[in-house]
Amino acid sequence: MAKRTLRKIEPVPFTQVSIEDDFWAPRQKINRDVTLNVQYEQLKSTGRLDAWTWKAGEPNQPHIFWDSDVAKWIEAGAYSLALHPDGQLEERIDAYIDAAAAAQEPDGYLNSHFIHVEPEKRWTNLRDWHELYCAGHLIEAAVAYYQATGKRKLLDVMCRYADLIDRTFGPNDGQMRGYPGHEEIELALVKLYRVTEEPRYLKLAQFFVEERGRQPHYYVIEAEQRDEKTKQSWVGDFSYNQANVPVREQTEVRGHAVRAGYFYAGVTDVGAELGDESLVQASKRLWNNLTQRRMYITGGVGPTHQNEGFTIDYDLPNESAYAETCASIALIFWAQRMLHVDPRRRYADVLERALYNCVLSGESLSGDAFFYTNRLAVYPPMEPFTPGGVGARRSDWFGCACCPPNLARLLASLGGYVYSKSEDALWVHLYVGSSVKLQLAGQEISLRQETDYPWNGQIQLKLWLNKPARFALMLRIPRWCPKARLLVNGEKVALGKVTSKGYARIERKWHDGDKIELLLSMPVERIEAHPKVRQDCGRVALQRGPLVYCLEEPDNGPDLNDIALPSGSAIEAEFDPDLLGGVVALTGEALRRDEDAFGKALYRPVGTDYRMIAFRAIPYYAWANRELGEMLVWLNAMV
Amino acid sequence: MAKRTLRKIEPVPFTQVSIEDDFWAPRQKINRDVTLNVQYEQLKSTGRLDAWTWKAGEPNQPHIFWDSDVAKWIEAGAYSLALHPDGQLEERIDAYIDAAAAAQEPDGYLNSHFIHVEPEKRWTNLRDWHELYCAGHLIEAAVAYYQATGKRKLLDVMCRYADLIDRTFGPNDGQMRGYPGHEEIELALVKLYRVTEEPRYLKLAQFFVEERGRQPHYYVIEAEQRDEKTKQSWVGDFSYNQANVPVREQTEVRGHAVRAGYFYAGVTDVGAELGDESLVQASKRLWNNLTQRRMYITGGVGPTHQNEGFTIDYDLPNESAYAETCASIALIFWAQRMLHVDPRRRYADVLERALYNCVLSGESLSGDAFFYTNRLAVYPPMEPFTPGGVGARRSDWFGCACCPPNLARLLASLGGYVYSKSEDALWVHLYVGSSVKLQLAGQEISLRQETDYPWNGQIQLKLWLNKPARFALMLRIPRWCPKARLLVNGEKVALGKVTSKGYARIERKWHDGDKIELLLSMPVERIEAHPKVRQDCGRVALQRGPLVYCLEEPDNGPDLNDIALPSGSAIEAEFDPDLLGGVVALTGEALRRDEDAFGKALYRPVGTDYRMIAFRAIPYYAWANRELGEMLVWLNAMV
Repeated sequence: MAKRTLRKIEPVPFTQVSIEDDFWAPRQKINRDVTLNVQYEQLKSTGRLDAWTWKAGEPNQPHIFWDSDVAKWIEAGAYSLALHPDGQLEERIDAYIDAAAAAQEPDGYLNSHFIHVEPEKRWTNLRDWHELYCAGHLIEAAVAYYQATGKRKLLDVMCRYADLIDRTFGPNDGQMRGYPGHEEIELALVKLYRVTEEPRYLKLAQFFVEERGRQPHYYVIEAEQRDEKTKQSWVGDFSYNQANVPVREQTEVRGHAVRAGYFYAGVTDVGAELGDESLVQASKRLWNNLTQRRMYITGGVGPTHQNEGFTIDYDLPNESAYAETCASIALIFWAQRMLHVDPRRRYADVLERALYNCVLSGESLSGDAFFYTNRLAVYPPMEPFTPGGVGARRSDWFGCACCPPNLARLLASLGGYVYSKSEDALWVHLYVGSSVKLQLAGQEISLRQETDYPWNGQIQLKLWLNKPARFALMLRIPRWCPKARLLVNGEKVALGKVTSKGYARIERKWHDGDKIELLLSMPVERIEAHPKVRQDCGRVALQRGPLVYCLEEPDNGPDLNDIALPSGSAIEAEFDPDLLGGVVALTGEALRRDEDAFGKALYRPVGTDYRMIAFRAIPYYAWANRELGEMLVWLNAMV
Repeated sequence: MAKRTLRKIEPVPFTQVSIEDDFWAPRQKINRDVTLNVQYEQLKSTGRLDAWTWKAGEPNQPHIFWDSDVAKWIEAGAYSLALHPDGQLEERIDAYIDAAAAAQEPDGYLNSHFIHVEPEKRWTNLRDWHELYCAGHLIEAAVAYYQATGKRKLLDVMCRYADLIDRTFGPNDGQMRGYPGHEEIELALVKLYRVTEEPRYLKLAQFFVEERGRQPHYYVIEAEQRDEKTKQSWVGDFSYNQANVPVREQTEVRGHAVRAGYFYAGVTDVGAELGDESLVQASKRLWNNLTQRRMYITGGVGPTHQNEGFTIDYDLPNESAYAETCASIALIFWAQRMLHVDPRRRYADVLERALYNCVLSGESLSGDAFFYTNRLAVYPPMEPFTPGGVGARRSDWFGCACCPPNLARLLASLGGYVYSKSEDALWVHLYVGSSVKLQLAGQEISLRQETDYPWNGQIQLKLWLNKPARFALMLRIPRWCPKARLLVNGEKVALGKVTSKGYARIERKWHDGDKIELLLSMPVERIEAHPKVRQDCGRVALQRGPLVYCLEEPDNGPDLNDIALPSGSAIEAEFDPDLLGGVVALTGEALRRDEDAFGKALYRPVGTDYRMIAFRAIPYYAWANRELGEMLVWLNAMV
């Protein structure tokens, strides 16, 4: 198969990037030292790690999606091992891989539930069960572990399984025309194709992408084979699985948000690798629908618990926001793929928004507790309706444990999102203190990025070259930034003239030791949402740089919704090293009504009993790390 | 049993009051001509009317609460017949009574489900099933039908059933110490006691009131007898049924809102009739909790569908408001009883609020469609999550059909809520154009009330006496009224000097033809809710007189939540005879943001792109009588 990728730029892989800042590097260390260990213990104690050797009658019967939980933890471990060797972690992963290899069926099949619990039901309910989803995650784990360690065992196991899947599913006689109910394997197969260069894996991904939603509908055929009366899904069509119509005909993101994100990431990958513009265009159309009408300011997506997903345009409830952590991680995957076929700031802006807000909120500062849902407003717990304050406190683990290891793998692989390269350029998408090494302009060059981002917008880049070379540095100027300045070796560069699609192109013959200074102004902004977002009318959110802020009860007392922010009042931003591990907090004055003036009245003609109060806002990602209490992103605003 | 009632005033019964105005009289006519007929057809076609003669194998197997639906319809018919004879209606009721009498078991038992479907389960699950609830409604029907027509057949049937219940339940050996899971019978037994003067019925009501929530808990005992593992209710205790602790220990209204309202009405009745101050005090405490912390501005109560009831103080969500029609009707029952033991305006104010807003909203202007839930904000339907716009369109009927006949009986009996009397006074609680005849000061006196209420606050009262007599007229000055004026035969009376507890006491020797003019000013008020009601912070509701207003999409277009009402701007009130059957509409100017200024952006730094628009608000009760669309009570307000 001829190479005709639509990727205009290529990511610089995680193995070449070392994060060395004060914001992410400590989080990656916690990820290694705490998160991977507590997740190992959870995977062990719940039986997931030993699912391959489970025997009937034993406790902890393997569940249909358990393999995926371990797979994401392995993937996280792999990214971590690439730059931080850890013998114990590697042994733990190898032991699991050995067990998986031993459990693999002679034909290549590999799923702990369907091997041990219901072997007769293999491939009988693609719509609801998770075989291909688990396969996808194990493939991702195998690729990452191979890239990080050079070890092929899991990769070989997964190639055998992928070969079986390739023989089983497809358009030919004797093959099943099915595709996963929970997408994931599409993007995984493209990864496998890239690392093995085996075109069958790309073709299989293409089949899964293109067959989805076609008539006669496979989920109906499958339901008939199961003798089920109800052929349709609970939502009336198959939009829950993004399978109501083929992807090229889809115009809005619908259904389960994690499935949607993984799927459209895969669609973009397949389109890019096949050189199929129509798939990339479909993905763009859906991306626009999502990011222009269905995304929280935190980068959270999928507002309702009812389908763990999407409802209608502009429906973004705050108090009941679902905004699953995994869905925003999937959004990041999708964003990264869009960015590489269409290098524009808009994708990196969304990637950054999701990363610094919804996703980072998904994990406690201590690295051992996790949010599944990421609300934008939290009020007192109401027993028995929201026991313990649902969505107000992070959990050690979940019965459906998709989010914790997903966070672990994203954090561990973060270096892979910072830089890309094209033939003549090095692209900087994210401002993260880090070092990168890459081949460019015929030599290995190094770049070191120093910054206190996201606390301020001063970024210093330094280049090391063996010999002078001509190439471009492509620097993202975030949309949130009203004013950017650039100096090269102390000389000012007029950004307006060189910036296109949100990236400043600094092209010249670079010399060893060249220094670039980028200054992104980071004022506190009051943000408003589109008038059709009914839940945010009359409200503003505070944002500074990439960070969305919130008010929390420990700083501001209860009844946060009665705090009204005056228009145009001063808001100070100051770094507080003792607050929440060190954050820039925002402080200012606002108004509250006087409860005493109400006496016992529940309602009264409007009064004027306001008093000025001082408020403090903290970065949204850092909320719920102190005592349980209220939280609010969208503040009542006085026009 | 000695009479030692705590009732300080006595209601003037519906049989003595004729409503003759342009607001309620047409609604009572629609109730007679349309509502009672369409409900008859529904009761017939669903099998409810023929439940007494149902046989195994036939369709329409009687449900445990069906008898109560018919009972409320009979009660409605009875109130209507008292002043508007209708041979067909009376025949229909008599036929049902004959069937009930024929079906009654020899021991007096009477419940269509437990006679025909599960006779072995009689009295085995008081917590969840509805035998005593149905009995209560049939008793109320029997009392009303006897009062209206003088016919005793149903009354006798229900006395036999009440006698059986009295033998079955009680504190003595061989009796069951149980009480209803769905309260209702308590207030019904007090009605039966008042009409029969049989003290056993009052004692039985007292037993049900006082036994409730005692330890050892009857619902636990009962669950053990059913060999059930789970002894507790789904909410963890029995607060769903107001049975977590005895009523004298209850400090907040909890659980199912209709049950709560009926129960506390009954508690007040029992306390009043027994002269038991402790019960009345308990009722007052709970009333205060409800009306000071848990009541919508519309008089709706019970915010959540989860228990069809109460959550915590100040939790009053608008878009998901449950606010069941029956719950506000129950609130009216409770209010009326409080008013009679403690004659203060606060009870009548709440009664009026619930009546003119939440309850009246429960029925279409055409009288043939009903709301079960009464939301305070409605947005576009979201298929499949809120199919067809749940709560946005009234229904012909419900599987659980408690609300429609409850509305019918309340409307038909409305005359009974207008006046009360005490030894030396005639009390006017509601301003409704009507005539009343009553014995007072040794003679029959008549009073005629003329008013266009609620459209304006001009009220004229005229007295007819055989001879001059000294007594007081007690006129409620509603809390919403900032300025009231009174003239007696054209001469001004200083209200401030004679008003106490919200009632103006006009005591003098009255003469035939005396004329009283009361002028209640009715400005448009912007109302704010207590700062702890998080859902209403930054918002105002418009109220004029007793009516709460709302914005509806047919008048104002979609995206109602983006309309911001400037502070202090003029709002005009004008009667429009062609709008919604004739209403006073409110009009004024407000601000909307300009969508175009957002382009494709979902979020942006706050702009100043506002435009002035004209808005029209209609009375809340009249919403959803035009095309489907948005509705909003609490408007975003600019401080």
